[in-house]
Amino acid sequence: MKTAIKIAFIGAGNVATHLATALRKQGFCILQVYSRTKKSADILAKKVGAQPVNDLRCLSDEADIYLISLPDNILLTVLNRINKSHKLFVHTSGFHDMHLLKAVSERIGVFYPLQTFSKNRELNFSTVPICIEAGKKEDAKLLIEIAETISSDVRLINSDKRRIIHLAAVFACNFSNYMYSVADSILAQRKVSFDILHPLIMETAQKVLYEKPMNTQTGPAKRGDITVIKQHLSMLSDKDVKKIYKMISDQIMISKPTNKK
Amino acid sequence: MKTAIKIAFIGAGNVATHLATALRKQGFCILQVYSRTKKSADILAKKVGAQPVNDLRCLSDEADIYLISLPDNILLTVLNRINKSHKLFVHTSGFHDMHLLKAVSERIGVFYPLQTFSKNRELNFSTVPICIEAGKKEDAKLLIEIAETISSDVRLINSDKRRIIHLAAVFACNFSNYMYSVADSILAQRKVSFDILHPLIMETAQKVLYEKPMNTQTGPAKRGDITVIKQHLSMLSDKDVKKIYKMISDQIMISKPTNKK
Repeated sequence: MKTAIKIAFIGAGNVATHLATALRKQGFCILQVYSRTKKSADILAKKVGAQPVNDLRCLSDEADIYLISLPDNILLTVLNRINKSHKLFVHTSGFHDMHLLKAVSERIGVFYPLQTFSKNRELNFSTVPICIEAGKKEDAKLLIEIAETISSDVRLINSDKRRIIHLAAVFACNFSNYMYSVADSILAQRKVSFDILHPLIMETAQKVLYEKPMNTQTGPAKRGDITVIKQHLSMLSDKDVKKIYKMISDQIMISKPTNKK
Repeated sequence: MKTAIKIAFIGAGNVATHLATALRKQGFCILQVYSRTKKSADILAKKVGAQPVNDLRCLSDEADIYLISLPDNILLTVLNRINKSHKLFVHTSGFHDMHLLKAVSERIGVFYPLQTFSKNRELNFSTVPICIEAGKKEDAKLLIEIAETISSDVRLINSDKRRIIHLAAVFACNFSNYMYSVADSILAQRKVSFDILHPLIMETAQKVLYEKPMNTQTGPAKRGDITVIKQHLSMLSDKDVKKIYKMISDQIMISKPTNKK
């Protein structure tokens, strides 16, 4: 199957870079890489043996799949500038409904890898969940086959459910990372190295692979220890961070563990 | 050194259980385990070959070190009921000042393992940072020697700094875990299994072992994508969770990455 399939990437950001690289490694032909920025198109195109393009009118007709991997706030603008096609158009967004793509084709789909991507970090794709959706059964089958060459966790998920997963991911990833950054800045003010928290951060993450997070909650709020909470609040100088500390502690205090896994 | 040292544990909770077990494994003699609850004292005492005690008046005089591992809000009450001693008294709290222990002895110290402990979870102590403090140099030396038998990361940290580390740990551990639990409940409402987030949670945690968390931030708030943020807010039914989403997104939007590692 795979050697016959030609893919054009529209977008050359973090997701496109990791995805194009992983697919290229599996023998797929990456025909073109489009980016508004010539340099970004050049870098990724070179990496995956594709033609760099920075004008949408230069998109080849020869690709079997057009994989659109753009920031959510750019997607619509770019779609409006792509000519109507009969080829399979797929986006990689957790947020956007698949049917947006109807503007460019009748064969549409979604290929959403649920992960946080950094350009300069090696990533093992094999465990990244890939959420697939497609308008036509045969396209869903094709996208699943492609996804299964790079990941062992491929799921058929519709747009509604994908949006929920994307929202949950903001809490699990973006907001937990924000908590790390607050911890980092608290330590930095007192010249304590952030690495002292590394084992704690890893253990906190690993625990929830085996147990519901509500049941692994620890700390002063969980114990209802008002003295510690008050003292912590008095130690925080940033009034917004103080407010966040208070709100989250209140939420932890009213939450009840559950027996369900 | 170690075989000669006898330790009495005051407290039989998560920290005491993990610590007593780890020290016992290294050949230390755990003389007694005190807990207000007979059952808790019995369980831990049996595990580490100690005498269970649930009356403070039964504390032996023969221990070299009394290791007090109690919830922060109980510590003071228990201290008031311990007879004055000339032995080394040590607490395991990240929060409390060492000098609280002056109420019971002139030889005082702190042995704070920076980790989140669950009773029923095996833990590898060897990478857990242990923060040591002591009133006398020779006691600091002794506590460091003991800590180094179970961990390769032993640090001399005073009470002020330890309190800062404890506050940072609340953000890095307790609050990131709260974010996991919000994600879990968002998914549960739509019957999506939480395991879909496991690779994302692990990658988010692993990233900050190599890079400052502020520089690894991703997501709609980081990109300033107001459309996605508004849609997410409309999807959240709990008004407190909505408020937390908004506050944290605002904070992420105003934060600037830094070049410093």
